[in-house]
Amino acid sequence: MNIAIVASAARLDPEMAARVTGLAEEHFGERAQLFFHPQCYKSDGHFAGDDNARADAFVDVANDPSFDGVWFGRGGYGSCRLLSNVLPRLGAAAHEKIYLGYSDTGSLLGGLYNLKIGRVVHGPMPADILRQGGDGAVLRALSFLIDQDFASLEPNIDRTLPSAAFNLTILSHLIGTPWQPDLSDHVLMIEDVSEHMYRIDRALFHVTSNPEIRKVAGIRLGRVRDVLPNEPEFGKTEEDIVRHWCRVSGIAYLGRADIGHDADNKVVPFG
Amino acid sequence: MNIAIVASAARLDPEMAARVTGLAEEHFGERAQLFFHPQCYKSDGHFAGDDNARADAFVDVANDPSFDGVWFGRGGYGSCRLLSNVLPRLGAAAHEKIYLGYSDTGSLLGGLYNLKIGRVVHGPMPADILRQGGDGAVLRALSFLIDQDFASLEPNIDRTLPSAAFNLTILSHLIGTPWQPDLSDHVLMIEDVSEHMYRIDRALFHVTSNPEIRKVAGIRLGRVRDVLPNEPEFGKTEEDIVRHWCRVSGIAYLGRADIGHDADNKVVPFG
Repeated sequence: MNIAIVASAARLDPEMAARVTGLAEEHFGERAQLFFHPQCYKSDGHFAGDDNARADAFVDVANDPSFDGVWFGRGGYGSCRLLSNVLPRLGAAAHEKIYLGYSDTGSLLGGLYNLKIGRVVHGPMPADILRQGGDGAVLRALSFLIDQDFASLEPNIDRTLPSAAFNLTILSHLIGTPWQPDLSDHVLMIEDVSEHMYRIDRALFHVTSNPEIRKVAGIRLGRVRDVLPNEPEFGKTEEDIVRHWCRVSGIAYLGRADIGHDADNKVVPFG
Repeated sequence: MNIAIVASAARLDPEMAARVTGLAEEHFGERAQLFFHPQCYKSDGHFAGDDNARADAFVDVANDPSFDGVWFGRGGYGSCRLLSNVLPRLGAAAHEKIYLGYSDTGSLLGGLYNLKIGRVVHGPMPADILRQGGDGAVLRALSFLIDQDFASLEPNIDRTLPSAAFNLTILSHLIGTPWQPDLSDHVLMIEDVSEHMYRIDRALFHVTSNPEIRKVAGIRLGRVRDVLPNEPEFGKTEEDIVRHWCRVSGIAYLGRADIGHDADNKVVPFG
């Protein structure tokens, strides 16, 4: 399987990329052909190259029929800046691909899903190799990409309902834009990292107040990690907060989801 | 003028309230009758009392014809939690009032403006007395409330176009909700505080991508204060960022606005 890696947000470290390539070779041999686009190593302030460099790299590999999938290298911030540039330029080959990432890259995953381009999947990225136990996360993603391994999947996926998974803050920033995906009847899984608890509450107010989001089949809560200190103490857990907003909005709360910014992050194919 | 003060987000300090009352008496004598609702001093975790206590206090004073205005005591976080509870309960007397605040209270100001309830105004709050030079901010708000003093107004207000002013992050969280106000043909002034520059960029992506917001006459940029360190350095100023998103979205950038989280914050009546 030919997998192209691009960095739509922050730049990648070449050593990290070499480790991922080595791990893929070790476990999948010639069945895993990873191509790290040179754009991954560019640098422009906050980003892996300027908006045009990141957009062009993504469009290049998405429109190239020799690649079976596009794997986002890592998150950070910056994917939303590519939406209006990238999506109108995607051709036929882009529709035949799988797109895998999470966190900030959810902006592009949401935009692709909204236009029904390709197969959109929430799951580990190459840079997860840097986490404790990160080899497992990277192999989980590769097993899904190469072997459609069911063991990679989030265990609560309901086979009778479509699924979607997002970083909560990223989804909040798609609400009311032309790229907000239609999640009617979906089980919506959310996770977040490095936010104050009041921001989790505020983002859930926002997302669950949107009339289109209220059409979801229900919400599952992934892990909310590295919560920043709240002054004063917020006094509610992330699950209290999700239950509150589900009650207010009339959305079913379906329990936890096995996703998050960690090495245990499971794979959630959209749809 | 009878002015009721409620705290829709964080609680007030009674000593601060006493200072504001003293300042109002000194400058306006009997013309300023300030009523700090006892709810201001309640405490429930992050908030000045739980959602019901804060909502009930607001509804009490908004529906009470003996008050001419409702002045939000301070920001923090929590006003958005009151929207679905408060707005349907407002009666005739609520339509005859002025509502003054900014920052987090913009959630309620936006919801009131959306329903054309009362006269909505962005400007200093009682808790601004705690800032360096804060007496001036409080007196500016009172001069506007009591004497409709033109000197309190933001100097760039265009008399030929309606205006609105928001904390950028708060406005972002109203996008796509039932409380998003119609800002067609308005000069939209924005300001923010204590955010990373990448979050300012992301919120502007969000707000300027919304088709309704694209109907504004233009955007003016207030102060973006206490920007949190960006790793790596974001490399663009807040004005660069606003110009970028105005260009992308086709919204006119009209220059700076004299509003912000500081003692110089000027008054912007909506409409």
